[in-house]
Amino acid sequence: MNNAMVGYILGSVMKIEGVLLLGPCAAAVRYGEKAGWYYLCVAVLCEICGWILAHGKPKNQVFYLKEGCVSTALSWLALSFFGGLPMFLCGDIPKFIDAVFEAASGFTTTGATILGDVEHLARATLLWRSMTHWVGGMGILVFLLAIVPLSGGSNMNIMRAESPGPSVGKLVPKVRHTARILYLIYVGLTILELILLLCGGMSFFDSINHAMATAGTGGFGVRNDSLASYSPYLQWVVTVFMILFGVNFNAYYFILFRQFRKAFGMEEVRYYLLIVLAGIMIVFLNVRPMYASDADGIRHAAFQVSSIISTTGFSTVDFDLWPQTARTILVLLMFIGACAGSTAGGMKVSRIVIAAKTVKKELGAYLHPKSIKKIRFEGKPVEHEVVRSINVYIITYAVIFAVSVFLVSFNNCNLETNVTAVAATVNNVGPGLAMVGPTLNYGHFSTFTKCVLIFDMIAGRLELFPLLMLFHPGIWKEAVRSSRLQKFLHREKNQA
Amino acid sequence: MNNAMVGYILGSVMKIEGVLLLGPCAAAVRYGEKAGWYYLCVAVLCEICGWILAHGKPKNQVFYLKEGCVSTALSWLALSFFGGLPMFLCGDIPKFIDAVFEAASGFTTTGATILGDVEHLARATLLWRSMTHWVGGMGILVFLLAIVPLSGGSNMNIMRAESPGPSVGKLVPKVRHTARILYLIYVGLTILELILLLCGGMSFFDSINHAMATAGTGGFGVRNDSLASYSPYLQWVVTVFMILFGVNFNAYYFILFRQFRKAFGMEEVRYYLLIVLAGIMIVFLNVRPMYASDADGIRHAAFQVSSIISTTGFSTVDFDLWPQTARTILVLLMFIGACAGSTAGGMKVSRIVIAAKTVKKELGAYLHPKSIKKIRFEGKPVEHEVVRSINVYIITYAVIFAVSVFLVSFNNCNLETNVTAVAATVNNVGPGLAMVGPTLNYGHFSTFTKCVLIFDMIAGRLELFPLLMLFHPGIWKEAVRSSRLQKFLHREKNQA
Repeated sequence: MNNAMVGYILGSVMKIEGVLLLGPCAAAVRYGEKAGWYYLCVAVLCEICGWILAHGKPKNQVFYLKEGCVSTALSWLALSFFGGLPMFLCGDIPKFIDAVFEAASGFTTTGATILGDVEHLARATLLWRSMTHWVGGMGILVFLLAIVPLSGGSNMNIMRAESPGPSVGKLVPKVRHTARILYLIYVGLTILELILLLCGGMSFFDSINHAMATAGTGGFGVRNDSLASYSPYLQWVVTVFMILFGVNFNAYYFILFRQFRKAFGMEEVRYYLLIVLAGIMIVFLNVRPMYASDADGIRHAAFQVSSIISTTGFSTVDFDLWPQTARTILVLLMFIGACAGSTAGGMKVSRIVIAAKTVKKELGAYLHPKSIKKIRFEGKPVEHEVVRSINVYIITYAVIFAVSVFLVSFNNCNLETNVTAVAATVNNVGPGLAMVGPTLNYGHFSTFTKCVLIFDMIAGRLELFPLLMLFHPGIWKEAVRSSRLQKFLHREKNQA
Repeated sequence: MNNAMVGYILGSVMKIEGVLLLGPCAAAVRYGEKAGWYYLCVAVLCEICGWILAHGKPKNQVFYLKEGCVSTALSWLALSFFGGLPMFLCGDIPKFIDAVFEAASGFTTTGATILGDVEHLARATLLWRSMTHWVGGMGILVFLLAIVPLSGGSNMNIMRAESPGPSVGKLVPKVRHTARILYLIYVGLTILELILLLCGGMSFFDSINHAMATAGTGGFGVRNDSLASYSPYLQWVVTVFMILFGVNFNAYYFILFRQFRKAFGMEEVRYYLLIVLAGIMIVFLNVRPMYASDADGIRHAAFQVSSIISTTGFSTVDFDLWPQTARTILVLLMFIGACAGSTAGGMKVSRIVIAAKTVKKELGAYLHPKSIKKIRFEGKPVEHEVVRSINVYIITYAVIFAVSVFLVSFNNCNLETNVTAVAATVNNVGPGLAMVGPTLNYGHFSTFTKCVLIFDMIAGRLELFPLLMLFHPGIWKEAVRSSRLQKFLHREKNQA
C-alpha cells in the first residue's frame, strides 16, 4: 500500500474543502452573519490538515485500485466530518452527529436532512449545504484530477472508485481532459438553470441554491416545504433540469461536439427517458382525483417522478399521502436511479437494462441450450467481465440493504420507514415514506442509526466497493506493513 | 418441442391427482360428509383427462430442458386448477379463484390462505389441504419419476425443473432410485412426527394434518389460531420438525448410509442451523419483555423463527404485534429460506452463502487484482456456471419481486402489506405482516392480485425459470411448429 500517496490525496482533498468553505464565508459577509467566523476557522483548519498531509508530492506515485478505493473512501469520510464541523460550531445544528449526517447527506447528494426547520438557518449554512451537493455531484476527486496532474494510469484508479456507473467511459484519452470537459458541461447547465430560475422571479440567493442542489441531484432546499410554495413555472424549470442532470453526461459531450446521432442514439438515455415518461403517466393516472386540474396533477406527477428517479429529492407535495400505486412507483424508481455517468444515485438504468437482458438471455438458453449469444448494449456486445461485475454489484447491494434494514430496525420505527429510509440513503435520494416522508426528517433516529445511514449514503455514492474496502482486514494489514514504523523496525532488526 | 411427451407427463400428473383425491373421499366416508361426492367426481374427471392426454407412451421420448420446464409448469397449473375444483364445488370456498389460490398455495407448500375461518370446513377439505402440502413438498413430478420409468437423460430435465436449489445433487446414479430414497426418508420423518404428536395427546386427525403440513413446510392448519391453542410440548415437536424438514435431505441420506462425517460436515446445513440459532436468539431478546416467562419467550421465538425460515408458516402468536427488530428478522428470514434439497422455499441458504462468498471474493480482487481464487462450497470449488446461474437467479428474483409489488399495489393496501404478501408467496412462506399477518388472510385481495400471487407461489416453488418459460414466445412458436396440425399442413404443401 502506498501510504504516502493516500495521504497526499487526502491532504489535497482537505485543501480543496478549505477553499470551498470560503463560499459560506462570503455569504456570511454579504448578509452580515456571525456564522462566517466558524466557517473561516474550519477553512483554516482544513488547510492546516491538508498541508500536514500533503506538502510536496511523494516520490513513489505508483497507485493501484486498492489505493484508489482507500483514498476515495477516506476522503469522503473526511469531507463529511469537516463539512459538518462549522454547522455544528455555529450552533445551526446542535448535535455533532447530526451535523456530520447533514454534511455526508450533502456531499453524497442525498439531501436527507435531520432538520425540521431550515428557514431559521444562517444563510452561510444554507449556501454551504447546496455547495456540498454541487461539489459532491461531480465527485471531488474527479475535480482534483481536473486540477492536479497525476502520473500514468493512477488517475483511472481514482476515477473508477468515484465515478458512478458500471464502467468508466473514457470520453477523451486523457482523464484530466475528460474531467475538465465534464466540469464545463456541468457548470454550463448549472448557469443555464440559474438564469431560468432568475427569469421566473426567484431571488438570487434561492436561485443559486436550487441550481446547485439540482445540478448535484441533491435535494436540500431553502424553505421548509421544499419547492411547494414556488410558482408552477419555477417547478417546471426544476423538473426539466432534474431530468437533464440524470442523463448520461456523455450525451452532452456528443452534443457539444455535434455528434447528434450518437447523442440521441444512446440506449441508456432512451430507456431512462422511457422510464421517466411511463412513471409520470402511471403516477398521474393514479393521483389525478386528488388535484383540482389535470395541469396540477401532471405537474406534481412529473415533479415527483423526476425528483425521485434523478435521486434529487425535492418535493412539491407530500407524496407520502398519495395512493399506494403512486407510492410504490416512487419507491421502485429510487432503486433504479438515473443514468450512469450522471450526478444521480441509485443502481443506474444501464445496470438495470443489462440485468434485464441477462434474464432474457437465460430464458433463451433454456430454449436453445447450445446457442451462444452475447448481450448487446449501446450497440456493442457487453464484455463478460462487465456482466459479472454488475451481478456482483447487485448482490452486494442487496446484502448492504438487508443488513442496513436490520440495523435500522433497532429504532422500532415501522418497516416502511426503515426500508424507505435505507432505500432513500443508499440510493442518495433523500426523502422516503412514512416517518422519513417529504414533510418529516431523519432527526428522530438514534445516533447508531444515523451512523448506519451515513455509511449507506457514502457507500451508495461510491458504488459500494470503495467504502467496503475499508472493512477488509487485508487493507489494514497492507497499510501497516508499508508504514514507516514497520520499515524502521525492519531496519533495526536487520542491523541487530 | 416434443408435444406428445409434454401431454403424456401432464396426463400422468392428472392421473396421480385423481388417485390423491381419493384421500379426502375416504375422510368424508369416515366422518359422514357429503363433500366426499364432489371430491369423487373431480377424481373421476382427473382420471378421464389424464387418460385422454396419456394413453400409451409416445414413441419419441426425447426430452430436453425446455420440455421439462413446460411440462412442469403446465402440470403445476393443472394441479392447482383441479385441486381447487372440489373445494369450490362442495361450497367450502364460495369463489372459484379463491379455491384455485388455496390449492396453489397448498401444492406450492406456501400455506397462504384466503379463509378467515377454517374450523367450519368439511374434514375432507381440511385433509385435502394438508395432503396438497405433503405431495407438493417433495414435488409431484419427482414422485412421477419414482413410479414411472422414463428413458435416458429425460428424467434429469424434469428433476432439474422441479427440484429446489442451485444444482441437483445426484445422490445415486439412477434418478428413479434417488427419488425413491428421498421419498422413503420423507415418509419416515412424517410418520415419526405423527407418532410424537399422538404421544402429546393431539387427536389422530389433527396429528396427521399437522404432520403432513410440517413435512411439506406448508402451513395450513386445522384451527383458526394455527398452533396457538396446542400444548407447549406439541409446539416444540412441530418446531423441531420444521427445522428438520428445512435440512438438505442429502444429510439424511448420508445418515441412512452411516456416512456421519459427511452428514454433519455439510456446510449448507451448518450455516442453516447457525442462522436458525442466531435468529432465535435475537428474536428472543427482542420479544422477551412481552412474555411472562423466559420459557414462553424462547418457545414462541423458536417456533416463529423455525416456521418462517423453513417457510412453513405456522404460528403460535401474532408476530405482527412483535417489536420491529423481531419483525424485520422474520421478513429477512423469509427471503433466505432453508436448505436446497429440502421441501422449503425461499432463496435457499446455499445460494445466499455462495452469493456472500462472491462478494468477499470481489473485495479480495480489489486488493489483489491478479489472484485467481475459486469460491469453495461444501469443500469443493464452485463451478463458474453455478455462480453465474445463482447470480441470474437472484436478479430474476428481484425483477419478479419488484413487478409483483407494483401489480399488487393496485389494491391500495399499504406498502408493508404488499411487500410482505409478495415475499410470503414467492418464498412459499404463507403469512406476511400487516393485512396479511398471521391472524388475517389473503381473502380481501382482488382477483387480479390473487392471480399475481398464484403466479408468484408457483414461480417460487419451481425456482422461477420453468414458469417464466411459459411467457417466452419462442416456446409457443416451437410448440405450434411441432404440432400435428402444422405437420399435416406441411405434408399437404409438399404434396401440392
